[in-house]
Amino acid sequence: MSSHTSGPIDPIRLREVLDGPWAEVRDAYRDQLDARFLPVYGENDDQARERVSRLLTDLPVELGIASAFPSAYGGRSDVGASIVASEMLAQVDLSLMVKAGVQWGLFGGAVAALGTPRHHDAYLRDIIAAKILGCFAMTETGHGSDVQQLRTTCTYDPQTQTFDLHTPHEAARKDYIGNAARDGRMAVVFAQLITQGRRHGVHAWLVPIRDAQGNPLPGVTIGDAGPKAGLLGVDNGRLSFDHVQVPRDMLLDRYGQVAADGTYSSPIANDSRRFFTMLGTLVRGRVSVGGAASAATKSALTIAVRYGDIRRQFTTPGADREVPLNDYLAHQRKLLPALATTYAYHFAQAELVAALDEVQGDDHPVDEHRQRELESRAAGLKAAQTWHATRTIQTCREACGGAGYLAENRLPGLKADTDVFTTFEGDNTVLLQLVAKGLLTGYRDEFGSLDGWGRASFVAEQVREMMLERTAARSLIQRLISAVPGRDEEVAVTDRGWQLKMFEDREKHLLETAIRRLRGGAATKKDRPFDIFNDVQDHVLAVAAAHIDRVTLEAFVAGIERTADPTVRALLSRVCDLYALTVIEADKAWFLEHARFTPARSKAITAVVNDLLKELRPQMRTLVDGFAIPEAWLHCAILREEPGRQETMAAHDAADDRPPVPA
Amino acid sequence: MSSHTSGPIDPIRLREVLDGPWAEVRDAYRDQLDARFLPVYGENDDQARERVSRLLTDLPVELGIASAFPSAYGGRSDVGASIVASEMLAQVDLSLMVKAGVQWGLFGGAVAALGTPRHHDAYLRDIIAAKILGCFAMTETGHGSDVQQLRTTCTYDPQTQTFDLHTPHEAARKDYIGNAARDGRMAVVFAQLITQGRRHGVHAWLVPIRDAQGNPLPGVTIGDAGPKAGLLGVDNGRLSFDHVQVPRDMLLDRYGQVAADGTYSSPIANDSRRFFTMLGTLVRGRVSVGGAASAATKSALTIAVRYGDIRRQFTTPGADREVPLNDYLAHQRKLLPALATTYAYHFAQAELVAALDEVQGDDHPVDEHRQRELESRAAGLKAAQTWHATRTIQTCREACGGAGYLAENRLPGLKADTDVFTTFEGDNTVLLQLVAKGLLTGYRDEFGSLDGWGRASFVAEQVREMMLERTAARSLIQRLISAVPGRDEEVAVTDRGWQLKMFEDREKHLLETAIRRLRGGAATKKDRPFDIFNDVQDHVLAVAAAHIDRVTLEAFVAGIERTADPTVRALLSRVCDLYALTVIEADKAWFLEHARFTPARSKAITAVVNDLLKELRPQMRTLVDGFAIPEAWLHCAILREEPGRQETMAAHDAADDRPPVPA
Repeated sequence: MSSHTSGPIDPIRLREVLDGPWAEVRDAYRDQLDARFLPVYGENDDQARERVSRLLTDLPVELGIASAFPSAYGGRSDVGASIVASEMLAQVDLSLMVKAGVQWGLFGGAVAALGTPRHHDAYLRDIIAAKILGCFAMTETGHGSDVQQLRTTCTYDPQTQTFDLHTPHEAARKDYIGNAARDGRMAVVFAQLITQGRRHGVHAWLVPIRDAQGNPLPGVTIGDAGPKAGLLGVDNGRLSFDHVQVPRDMLLDRYGQVAADGTYSSPIANDSRRFFTMLGTLVRGRVSVGGAASAATKSALTIAVRYGDIRRQFTTPGADREVPLNDYLAHQRKLLPALATTYAYHFAQAELVAALDEVQGDDHPVDEHRQRELESRAAGLKAAQTWHATRTIQTCREACGGAGYLAENRLPGLKADTDVFTTFEGDNTVLLQLVAKGLLTGYRDEFGSLDGWGRASFVAEQVREMMLERTAARSLIQRLISAVPGRDEEVAVTDRGWQLKMFEDREKHLLETAIRRLRGGAATKKDRPFDIFNDVQDHVLAVAAAHIDRVTLEAFVAGIERTADPTVRALLSRVCDLYALTVIEADKAWFLEHARFTPARSKAITAVVNDLLKELRPQMRTLVDGFAIPEAWLHCAILREEPGRQETMAAHDAADDRPPVPA
Repeated sequence: MSSHTSGPIDPIRLREVLDGPWAEVRDAYRDQLDARFLPVYGENDDQARERVSRLLTDLPVELGIASAFPSAYGGRSDVGASIVASEMLAQVDLSLMVKAGVQWGLFGGAVAALGTPRHHDAYLRDIIAAKILGCFAMTETGHGSDVQQLRTTCTYDPQTQTFDLHTPHEAARKDYIGNAARDGRMAVVFAQLITQGRRHGVHAWLVPIRDAQGNPLPGVTIGDAGPKAGLLGVDNGRLSFDHVQVPRDMLLDRYGQVAADGTYSSPIANDSRRFFTMLGTLVRGRVSVGGAASAATKSALTIAVRYGDIRRQFTTPGADREVPLNDYLAHQRKLLPALATTYAYHFAQAELVAALDEVQGDDHPVDEHRQRELESRAAGLKAAQTWHATRTIQTCREACGGAGYLAENRLPGLKADTDVFTTFEGDNTVLLQLVAKGLLTGYRDEFGSLDGWGRASFVAEQVREMMLERTAARSLIQRLISAVPGRDEEVAVTDRGWQLKMFEDREKHLLETAIRRLRGGAATKKDRPFDIFNDVQDHVLAVAAAHIDRVTLEAFVAGIERTADPTVRALLSRVCDLYALTVIEADKAWFLEHARFTPARSKAITAVVNDLLKELRPQMRTLVDGFAIPEAWLHCAILREEPGRQETMAAHDAADDRPPVPA
């Protein structure tokens, strides 16, 4: 496991491992999406919207983006393929990926998941074919994360057999809604269902918002969210409803029905539980966003690593050429741990997509416990991958200096477009809290409500076993951990079992002490219920982060275990060492505070990380080439092979290019 | 020093402390720059360039932006005022600030500093009046940080008494040059001076590049750097010269002269030393950029903190309204340490500006040792402030959720515009290396050359005293440190002397061990000279970072010492505690590894930080109001007081806004 990596490896062998079970979807995109689908630098909002809107309808749907829909309506009942497709699209153009995500994931996905056959029969084919473009109108100006508290109302009137959809005040308008400002003809609108004078919580309706000419329908006010940091091709807008009449059968009524006389019925009695069941069907959005963030991170790293091999800076004694940036330890420190982490998330995301595909596959009822676990995993990996993207793309842009600030070198677009990922499809901090809550309650609480903490702190029993359920490579991991001798100091820090044990120990200890503090708070802060939770919020978020780290490392280990090729396996094993030690190094203080290792060993970890950087330096290019991003998709001027340009620049840059100096 | 902060403080009293000696410059800007000078959201590049270009010439120069120029030519010989003016401009519009910085700082500053009276008489008045717009053409496509290795040549021909300015190949073209793509009529061009067949290193010439109609002059090729991540109003371009004839007297010849017959002379014999003396005059650019980064950070924090008071999310048991974001510990953890750090850098920057003003004041010769120290301080604080800006503005944008992604809320522009600050006017990593080199050599090396490390590792003697020279409050700091009893564990972590001692200890130890490792490497890696330095590059960068932290804390302590008002003093003292403990907490692992405190004390630090957050929560608004950014300058829709909007939203947001639920 700690054998040194040997000579050059063909990146194609890495690619085969990374591409995984939906390799043919990835290849279809690589083959068929040409330069026409790439972003155009320097466009204004109108130009970008017009272009991306056109491309959305030109997109070859058969490549997989709509494959999650039932086969009966033109999909493939293949959830995994749809996620992988959106990861690929994210490497082509993030505006197009988000716009597609709104159309087929959120809008179409909501009609499929929350509607019933009459909705499916009437709309799904046109939605899949992009003949009806739509919006997913959930978020309001006043409520984003706490969507159970939406203020839009939809009140049933048995006289007319219609609902009255209404925006009571400005804070209740739908905001940031993709496809709203320009293209959407219909919207899935979330609102409080009221019938017979009683509220039944948030439900969804399928509501036409524009006529065939594109004008807003009576009672619908459409605004434009205006210029944004990025995603210029996505027409985010605002929707308000002034007593809009919605026919009864436009309620997407899989989880809640209103009879003609106004009688409400539902298979799920509890409003909150019903709502979170409805939200649960939307977990794919989070999985897509996490995957898209990592896909964009791979593009950025490919650009920065390749530039770091070309770009030279400062001479060194005795050398006749300047030193490539990638040879500097400080540059390796910027790029290689980020690259190793990107590999780790790749395997974690692949495992998540496989689990999603299994849990939400069409041919069996959803296992509720597994669904909860899946939601937690999706939330955690979405937060981890999107924050990693924001940090890493920023690092890549800085690693390319002034060139990294020019649009023609792609990085500014990657940064700006992915930036919103940390706060949409669930704010990352709120998502980490959701993960923590699942761990504290062993997923046995009343669903994922985030307001207050309910019984969270008081039900935490037998959490330990729950937490340690592993989805992959369980026995291997247990064996590796068991093989670690009692006295840790004798084990190399590159021992996989020791690394796994450190990750597991930290998570367990953080969880146990969080539970203890919550219980203590509950006893002593009875008059300050908010403080019980708020005083430990940082601790609770640390539990979630440690959990995601552990899940990620285990997925990486499982991925290596599945790899047959011994040289690829050896390389991945070193990358995994770097990932594990990067995480441990970043949280060294915790391990020292809790006597998990000595100060001497702590210093040794930094030395080993530096050794790994030196060892992996020659593999940097191979590691990014393994991502197999088509050359054209990189769309980056500093990497472009103008006739002999790099060669000319390199030749001229040699030190002997200086004018002769006579003695 | 550790007394608790009391009730509300009038922000005006904070503002008086922060505004400092150039308060009247700050007030003049606040009073006179109205909405016309603010950025326009959603512009394309052409629109932004046209507008900012017009505003540049409309800018009331008398407010201070050109005050560094000698009084004889229309300036005020007031260097400090010019820096403060550019800090203020950074809160109005960063494109305008950068464009002004190019015109009056880099271009005009180079003519003033590197030219002689014939250049001053001929050009300075028109430059100050923005009648001649100009560029600072140093960076080349192939050489940014290592500007001593520029490839452009300028060869003297005694026959014609002209220089031949030439771009030998594509990598030698001038790149990223502000004012080049659209507006510049002249450029200060840096190139290798060659005369009588001999190179004399990099010098600068004042070269016309466009005619009166704006067309490129013969032999000059002007390109456009194209769309960028931000700074849309700045016309960055590329310049190439095809054997352009430059009259002899256009050499800016303060530090190197060429006689009619081609004889070269200079008051500084060594090429490298001469070049770094020339560069040293340009230290103001770095001081301006660091200050501008902090100014933008203050704008971002003001927006995020105020939004965090307005925006409510999730209910808490027993409360009838949702909880403001700023009440959450996780939100405080995001914003308050960043705010405390911004205060710390404010005082460090103020001290730096005062030192710059004193060292570069017109009426005395520049003290070379102090100039070196100043350059090091400027480099370090530029790196620290610009990285802090990048991180903090990102955090603020995320803290505002989806709203933070909309251009109308200012944060996207602040992020995109400041992003390049980490890599221009010196790449931050390279600048930290410069700081480290100064510390290792006690500023006695041959100037700030960064290629190789010269004798850096071998001259480090008596460095300790050198390092501990303090520019302010020296005796107070010594007294505070001396008062710390021998056994640290008995001292509160809020004891200022203990905090100062921790900062100082870390810097000393890092420096001493870096020297030891460099010496060891020199002995054992004779055949691998690059590795001697590269193997410790991360350690050396840590020395620089620790040094900047110490300098910053000491400046904060000195600033508090100068504060007369006891309540303001008490508040600043708590903010300083938060800054110091934030730095210590972030580097806890180092202190534990080096037995500077126990694991128990390490945990206590986190608890004290959380206590400080709770204590400072009610002062968040006061702390940002102390920055005294005019309301109009914030230019942010979510803070705008539409008639009663916030009140209406707040009222409607109350929980009792829900439709009644009959029993």
